[in-house]
Amino acid sequence: MKKLLLLYFILIMTLLAYLYVAHFRGNDTMYNEQEAGLRGGLDEKYVMVNFLSGIDYWKNVLKGFEDAAETLNVSVEYRGATQYGAQEEVIVLEQVIARKPAGIAVSAIDSEVLNDAIQKAVEAGIPVVMFDADAPDSKAYSFIGTNNYEAGVTAARQMAAMSGGKGQFGIITHPNQLNHQQRTKGFKETIEREFPDMELVAIEDGKGDQLVSEQKTLDMISGYSNLSGIFVTEASGGVGVGNAVYAAGLQGKLTVICFDTDKGTLDMIKSGTVSATIAQGTWSMGYWSLMQLFHLNHQLVEPMPDWRGANVSPVPNYVDTGVTVVTVDNVDHFYAK
Amino acid sequence: MKKLLLLYFILIMTLLAYLYVAHFRGNDTMYNEQEAGLRGGLDEKYVMVNFLSGIDYWKNVLKGFEDAAETLNVSVEYRGATQYGAQEEVIVLEQVIARKPAGIAVSAIDSEVLNDAIQKAVEAGIPVVMFDADAPDSKAYSFIGTNNYEAGVTAARQMAAMSGGKGQFGIITHPNQLNHQQRTKGFKETIEREFPDMELVAIEDGKGDQLVSEQKTLDMISGYSNLSGIFVTEASGGVGVGNAVYAAGLQGKLTVICFDTDKGTLDMIKSGTVSATIAQGTWSMGYWSLMQLFHLNHQLVEPMPDWRGANVSPVPNYVDTGVTVVTVDNVDHFYAK
Repeated sequence: MKKLLLLYFILIMTLLAYLYVAHFRGNDTMYNEQEAGLRGGLDEKYVMVNFLSGIDYWKNVLKGFEDAAETLNVSVEYRGATQYGAQEEVIVLEQVIARKPAGIAVSAIDSEVLNDAIQKAVEAGIPVVMFDADAPDSKAYSFIGTNNYEAGVTAARQMAAMSGGKGQFGIITHPNQLNHQQRTKGFKETIEREFPDMELVAIEDGKGDQLVSEQKTLDMISGYSNLSGIFVTEASGGVGVGNAVYAAGLQGKLTVICFDTDKGTLDMIKSGTVSATIAQGTWSMGYWSLMQLFHLNHQLVEPMPDWRGANVSPVPNYVDTGVTVVTVDNVDHFYAK
Repeated sequence: MKKLLLLYFILIMTLLAYLYVAHFRGNDTMYNEQEAGLRGGLDEKYVMVNFLSGIDYWKNVLKGFEDAAETLNVSVEYRGATQYGAQEEVIVLEQVIARKPAGIAVSAIDSEVLNDAIQKAVEAGIPVVMFDADAPDSKAYSFIGTNNYEAGVTAARQMAAMSGGKGQFGIITHPNQLNHQQRTKGFKETIEREFPDMELVAIEDGKGDQLVSEQKTLDMISGYSNLSGIFVTEASGGVGVGNAVYAAGLQGKLTVICFDTDKGTLDMIKSGTVSATIAQGTWSMGYWSLMQLFHLNHQLVEPMPDWRGANVSPVPNYVDTGVTVVTVDNVDHFYAK
């Protein structure tokens, strides 16, 4: 009996010693976690709000947002207006704000209409950043997306290189949207500044529609006998332009430069109907939006104590996610996996 | 005795149960640490390379670099050419590359001269980003700094607001440096585009020197009877312009807009000799440079497997760290702590 008691006593002492060690190791781990490393909690929810939320274009943006969330151990939610309706997006954004998330990344259907809701969020202490489509006069802390003027410059230089740099050229665009105006302006000014042998003869409204863009292209082909190339600033129109060029038997003779990497556009690059397309840094838009929101939520920002009072931006106010020229040489990389 | 045995038995079971829970919690913590959170090792060394490495301007940039390193649990080193010499910076950069650091943030004294060394680093697998002063044709992955053209636009609008928007205006600049050319261009084009009653009459070379800038200002004051304001694109010259305005007894009558937040400039804002200065996002330059280098080193980038082959930028290629207009209203926030 006494031996058993002694054995029990030794066992208890051993367990206590082990607990003591385990406790210290535990404390050490907690210490490191607090001291260094960017890591949030799964109860922190960051929300992405956009419009036409079902289209393929957003998939890679959301993937970037989700990848950053996984890296930082936080949660995300994807919300958006399902239609192309400004009031619908305002309502969705206000519903999201009411649930007080850790941060909101917004792509604005309209550069003005969301400003009041964004101001409400920021004044309630909810960080807001814009991605892909900016609301430049809003209270959002930053814009993360393509420099659309520079994308137009890139398209113009690519057009010059692929078309031989002379002849007549047209643009098919969406003239009421800021992004498309900027792409058109970058293209137009670059042609005027750098390529005296290229003549811009037509800027047409494709209405973001495949069939309208196809018809406008056929009109342009019949109207300008020396037409050497067309730049389409928008994805749906690109396929329409490609169809028109194919119908007219001009593939390979007319240089077509599109925008974005829809499957239809990529297929036409492979078949030679479309010469190139301008791919946006969509994954980066999502990833760096969440990274900035995380920094704002955790106050890992410009250390000036009263940056609000000093009118200093706590995070970089513009992140240019860049573009890539996609041709037959690198098109295979751009198909969705 | 039996009671004591029972008590020991209960105690042992309790301890075992506690150990079981502690063990699982411990495993859980380790699991999370490996799975999520941005955290490096202290053996990862990121190096900042610049020129005129001793001047006050860099202090806040380095602070941002160090703050990010502390957050991410990595090490940093500050190296730079002590003089304003291009060859000295090339040698420093090559020495840094030879030690194979985890990443290098470079501010280029000259937009071309470092290109070969940068290419060597990137080809050896060492990530390089540019900050503050870009080398746009180099192989560096990105540029993190001020949009100097936009800074000039901001200065022009501030000049219009503070001077009444009419009269003759001059610029004192450093005409051989890209940053200063861009600030001058942004100012000039904004005046021409937006303010028809403002006339730009002189653009002078202050040679980055206080006394030269002072003399150029005195010449401008005596040469233009309707002079309403001067924009100085560079910090050392700002104090010289302020001295000239004070000597001519024109403080408060001539609007002076400077650049950067040297103590001398801030003091002149407080005393009313200088009207405003354009502060750059220096802390953000350092912080987000390290953040990008960490992502490149850990391959937390654009997930396209062969982004090199596809010619896609793995991180955003430009981060605009923004500017703040500093006037007597917010000047107190900008003194170094």
